[in-house]
Amino acid sequence: MATSLESGAVFPDYVDLPHVVIIGGGFAGIAVARGLANKNVRVTIIDKHNFHTFLPLLYQVATAMLEPAEVAYPIRTIFGKAKNVGFRHAQVREVDHARSVVVLEHGGEITFDHLVVATGATAAFFGIPGASQFAMPLYSLADARRLRNRLLTSLEEADASADTTPISLNFIIVGGGPTGVETSGALSELIKTVIKRDGLRIDPTRVRVMLVDLAPRLLTPFPEKASAYAKRELEKMGVEIELGRSVVEVEERAIRFADGERMKVAAVIWAAGVTASGTMAHDVQPSPGPGGRLRVMPDLRLVESNNVWAVGDAAAVPLDETSLCPQLAPVAMQSGRHCAEQILRTIDGKPTTSFRYRNKGIMATIGRHAAIAKLPGGTVFKGTTGWLAWLGLHLWYLVGFRNRLRVMINWTWRYFDWPSGPRLIVADAETAE
Amino acid sequence: MATSLESGAVFPDYVDLPHVVIIGGGFAGIAVARGLANKNVRVTIIDKHNFHTFLPLLYQVATAMLEPAEVAYPIRTIFGKAKNVGFRHAQVREVDHARSVVVLEHGGEITFDHLVVATGATAAFFGIPGASQFAMPLYSLADARRLRNRLLTSLEEADASADTTPISLNFIIVGGGPTGVETSGALSELIKTVIKRDGLRIDPTRVRVMLVDLAPRLLTPFPEKASAYAKRELEKMGVEIELGRSVVEVEERAIRFADGERMKVAAVIWAAGVTASGTMAHDVQPSPGPGGRLRVMPDLRLVESNNVWAVGDAAAVPLDETSLCPQLAPVAMQSGRHCAEQILRTIDGKPTTSFRYRNKGIMATIGRHAAIAKLPGGTVFKGTTGWLAWLGLHLWYLVGFRNRLRVMINWTWRYFDWPSGPRLIVADAETAE
Repeated sequence: MATSLESGAVFPDYVDLPHVVIIGGGFAGIAVARGLANKNVRVTIIDKHNFHTFLPLLYQVATAMLEPAEVAYPIRTIFGKAKNVGFRHAQVREVDHARSVVVLEHGGEITFDHLVVATGATAAFFGIPGASQFAMPLYSLADARRLRNRLLTSLEEADASADTTPISLNFIIVGGGPTGVETSGALSELIKTVIKRDGLRIDPTRVRVMLVDLAPRLLTPFPEKASAYAKRELEKMGVEIELGRSVVEVEERAIRFADGERMKVAAVIWAAGVTASGTMAHDVQPSPGPGGRLRVMPDLRLVESNNVWAVGDAAAVPLDETSLCPQLAPVAMQSGRHCAEQILRTIDGKPTTSFRYRNKGIMATIGRHAAIAKLPGGTVFKGTTGWLAWLGLHLWYLVGFRNRLRVMINWTWRYFDWPSGPRLIVADAETAE
Repeated sequence: MATSLESGAVFPDYVDLPHVVIIGGGFAGIAVARGLANKNVRVTIIDKHNFHTFLPLLYQVATAMLEPAEVAYPIRTIFGKAKNVGFRHAQVREVDHARSVVVLEHGGEITFDHLVVATGATAAFFGIPGASQFAMPLYSLADARRLRNRLLTSLEEADASADTTPISLNFIIVGGGPTGVETSGALSELIKTVIKRDGLRIDPTRVRVMLVDLAPRLLTPFPEKASAYAKRELEKMGVEIELGRSVVEVEERAIRFADGERMKVAAVIWAAGVTASGTMAHDVQPSPGPGGRLRVMPDLRLVESNNVWAVGDAAAVPLDETSLCPQLAPVAMQSGRHCAEQILRTIDGKPTTSFRYRNKGIMATIGRHAAIAKLPGGTVFKGTTGWLAWLGLHLWYLVGFRNRLRVMINWTWRYFDWPSGPRLIVADAETAE
């Protein structure tokens, strides 16, 4: 048991309690810490950012509907009232299992009694040449801001070069899952709004928003009817859908397909899938499972470990005998809660129980007024009902009352189509000065 | 008169109208464009940022009270309904007076019939060694974000090193004018809130917020009584005031005073004054006036020019026979409006009139519930009355109804001391990924 202040105690009163260290302040890590708040342990969350990011709404930051601060929340503030939960703003270099110590990037070590790896996932580029370098993923606040700056800058450049050499205004979204569908719909709306409202000298017919996927239909986890509905709605919004098409190379301002076509682009947005490898210190587990996910036992403890756990996207959580849980927010939250319980049981000397994922359905929004939701029984909501369900659920899960209020105001604004929007090219300010 | 689309026309209908090009989208530039909106000219605003920044509230962005988007507004959106006003997202390289052309940094030229230089001012470092490199000014959105990141990161570092080598938590604000007074008050409040709410392991008595000025009193444009009041209020908030003290060098994490003292610091915030030099293409006027400000005639036309004008902080606007107007927002707005009128008069063949600054008073806020306002007659408001006047005025001048609403919500929030605040260290996300 850790006994010195040096190992990250929040208050001296907690020094003698078992120390649970959580790496990662995403849905899973926060759920673990919430489960341990005000219990008889002390907790330290380590994250390289001092804020928790609400990933499901990142695409709205990228498409200038929401501000970064509206989908992010300081981790310290989340646990302001839980005196046993502390935070450390740092990057992890390695985990020393023998000494039960987390070594930090810029010096310092944190001793743990239990370690929870909740480092999430990151974009998977499947080794496609140029993809990791030139395609733009949407997996962090920085990604979202970079993409927003690229979109708005492209439109400014198109306006500036209207009379000389027109630049390409092809926006390609790779990946027909929820992120790809949501982003392409929002992007198409953004561009139409900006051109119309801001008086840009751009012929709207020159702009192409194209959603590309290798699969024969969009949103494969949904029933076929829902996929067809999503396709129809997106096409109504001006999105071109190209299915059964694969990308073989991404260049700085171009994309090449397997059929040989090479197309100039303003941006390639990468929503093709995720991998857990690369988001954690690689000595957490020498040989992880599929997609770089950590192999865990049914109670979420790491295979071959007594006091290291893995949750959320970073873990290969068994769904049943043959398959793994999908990498979704509900799995992250549920596995985090389960892990917290098991750590408390272990400390109390009780046996642990197996994690079971309770599927509460999946959802995707397509634009204003159109969304689909699939409940476990198979019921599918679509249109306005689906959209309102989507709105309500996302507002509910946003951290912090102020963020909920602000997002609600922004959505209401957007719904009534008021002209303003946070269309600031801010990285510009970052680099230019 | 410009006649080709190439020179930046918004819509072909406006091509044959006289073209007014405005460099800079601050208070002054926006005021000129507003004065010309829907008149018989076409207007192009050039700015290196696609947004207008509300400078008087930058210190609130730096102290995590407001978000960047709440004090910034896209320039295109401001003029969305004025079809004769266009925007060009670019940096100016030079002005070719002989050809009446503005040459842009990344290629392209814009021909003008009238040119308005509204490039504002930037921090003046008075040649003090290290100041421009290590001190942090507050004159752009990027400055404000950088300062916020430094403040929050310093507190995280202090928390992380609480048990080893404690780092310095001295924050020095140089300059006892309104910016220095407002920033030091807000900074002191921020630090107290963060330490208390977020459970940082920092002894609050280790934190020093120090306001330094060479002058014998704060806020020299105000009467002595108001200066004394500001000093008292700041001291109540825990700010140390050191008057009659001058800085001779700034190092990366230290400051040296004329009396020989060298002090380790977490940050030096530079609010010591402004200069116009360096913010504009230096060939606008070969020999500008005091503080790098462009010498103008009483009608705001550049000395020795027929069709180039200067307004706001960039211009040496005569106040009376012996002195110049102060570099303040009201001067910028009033001179912008006057300039627009004179351009229209010139185009109509009418004689121009001289600019007269109508002094409506000055204001500074010290913290919650404390502000001072001085009306031209000499009346001074202070305390809550001054504070409410300050709130109202700043809300009124913020661009965009949505920003006003959001800022009002944030201030109300802050007033009632609700725990959350946008304390995100975002540059972190920028650089780390």
